[in-house]
Amino acid sequence: MLGSIGIDDIETPFEKAEGILGGSASYAAVAGSFFGPNRMVSIVGEDFTDDQRRLFTSRGIDLDGLETAPGKTFRWGGRYAMNFDDRETTFTDLNVLAEFDPKLPASYRDSRFVVLGNTDPAVQLKVLDQLDGPEVVVVDTMNFWLDSQRDLVDEVLARANVVVVNEEEARMISGHHSIPRSALEMLDMGLEAVIIKRGAYGATLRTAGEWFFTSAYPLLEMRDPTGAGDSFAGALTGYLAREGELTDQNLRRAVVHGSVAASFSVEGFGLESLLNLTEQQMKDRYAEFLRFSRVELDID
Amino acid sequence: MLGSIGIDDIETPFEKAEGILGGSASYAAVAGSFFGPNRMVSIVGEDFTDDQRRLFTSRGIDLDGLETAPGKTFRWGGRYAMNFDDRETTFTDLNVLAEFDPKLPASYRDSRFVVLGNTDPAVQLKVLDQLDGPEVVVVDTMNFWLDSQRDLVDEVLARANVVVVNEEEARMISGHHSIPRSALEMLDMGLEAVIIKRGAYGATLRTAGEWFFTSAYPLLEMRDPTGAGDSFAGALTGYLAREGELTDQNLRRAVVHGSVAASFSVEGFGLESLLNLTEQQMKDRYAEFLRFSRVELDID
Repeated sequence: MLGSIGIDDIETPFEKAEGILGGSASYAAVAGSFFGPNRMVSIVGEDFTDDQRRLFTSRGIDLDGLETAPGKTFRWGGRYAMNFDDRETTFTDLNVLAEFDPKLPASYRDSRFVVLGNTDPAVQLKVLDQLDGPEVVVVDTMNFWLDSQRDLVDEVLARANVVVVNEEEARMISGHHSIPRSALEMLDMGLEAVIIKRGAYGATLRTAGEWFFTSAYPLLEMRDPTGAGDSFAGALTGYLAREGELTDQNLRRAVVHGSVAASFSVEGFGLESLLNLTEQQMKDRYAEFLRFSRVELDID
Repeated sequence: MLGSIGIDDIETPFEKAEGILGGSASYAAVAGSFFGPNRMVSIVGEDFTDDQRRLFTSRGIDLDGLETAPGKTFRWGGRYAMNFDDRETTFTDLNVLAEFDPKLPASYRDSRFVVLGNTDPAVQLKVLDQLDGPEVVVVDTMNFWLDSQRDLVDEVLARANVVVVNEEEARMISGHHSIPRSALEMLDMGLEAVIIKRGAYGATLRTAGEWFFTSAYPLLEMRDPTGAGDSFAGALTGYLAREGELTDQNLRRAVVHGSVAASFSVEGFGLESLLNLTEQQMKDRYAEFLRFSRVELDID
């Protein structure tokens, strides 16, 4: 799991928290850890504590690829609007992340399932270059990189199997407004699966053969949307890694597992609900998701 | 099927048509006719032609409840923005619709399944008053009536079993921003099923026991969104009337049938694609919808 580790200040219409553990790699690794051990590639500063490390290692997350650099850990602040959809970045202190030049430990070279979390595409490429041909590469990106380094993003996509983007990113990548058309267009770029996250509406999966649509969990209250997409990608890839094969049905189930993780993630502040979650709770909600879309065959 | 019959001028970013048959009752009755005969309650002017009548009667739609009044048929014009989501009403000539005071023929009194299409709630109530206790009343409404005659809308809802609304209307009725919360709130108003249409995202059904979510059809091109919601309500009710019972599974299938009809409706201009549709095409797309959400059980 490549991505950022950050210390976040988050403000929602109802709550506020400062200095909580966050970052795309944190959410992805914790969500993925429900399906088996995983390896982290990221960077922190000297202020990162042993307790924070233990949060990861206690869940089977390998930190050999977590670099500690002189200086401070990445910090980020965000404030959500009343609708929880619009977010304003209140500050970004890249700190050690500014000079991140990942050097993977030898033990990571054989990684078969890889999540390239939302970071600089140049960094994503450096990670790929250090792997011995992974089987499945899942890529997340962001409007910022699509605006500033489109060529490099395209290079990453050309080496990926699965892309996970939101609607805005899908439109930017494809140049089409229609989401179904964007998905098909991205598939034509050589991807095996295109997954479009649609927030409160769920997610769409397109493979060569089929469409798949899943709803989001009908949450009556949301506490903190931060990390929902990273949790989605982490659980999705964790599930795929455990199952081992990129079949259409495994991808469908992976999208549902991603949605389950995202729904729990937003029910708590920061990582708290993922960290307190049991495997049984995840299984129960997975079963609920399947019930939400089940239509028994009738004579039609 | 209660609703308007209108002559529409429609302009999309790519096409334009004038003087085409439309109105909520037209779309609902034609979409419903795939599941069996139905009865129309509406009003037209003396300019309404025999050919236009035959479009309905040839599909088994009973026009005994279609009043012809001195004057002109209701006319409406709409222009869609580039995204097809935003619509501007270019003109509204109520004409004979302004004085519509429905008088149902005796043969309609025993109607068991009723769609109260989007019209003045006072008119919806008058229709209910002339029926001998229908089994299932499906209600559609609109922000305009919620703003201007909320008390009457509430009266209609209190006598209905199923409500079909879009997200904005759901929020107005419930006073909540969250769509899941709005659905539960409306259910508490005494409805058996709440159906929220979410445009390109599909539809949500809430019954006392369960949630159900279905996607929209992944259309690569949309031609004319007019009448999508009315087609949805018409097919939904047509299917329920044919099946006869308001079970959870019948409601789920009805929502999918409604989504199928809406998807065909928006692929053509005005009523054209619904009028040219075969039953087999509807069945095939229904089967596709079920495939789009099918997750085979795994060991989890």
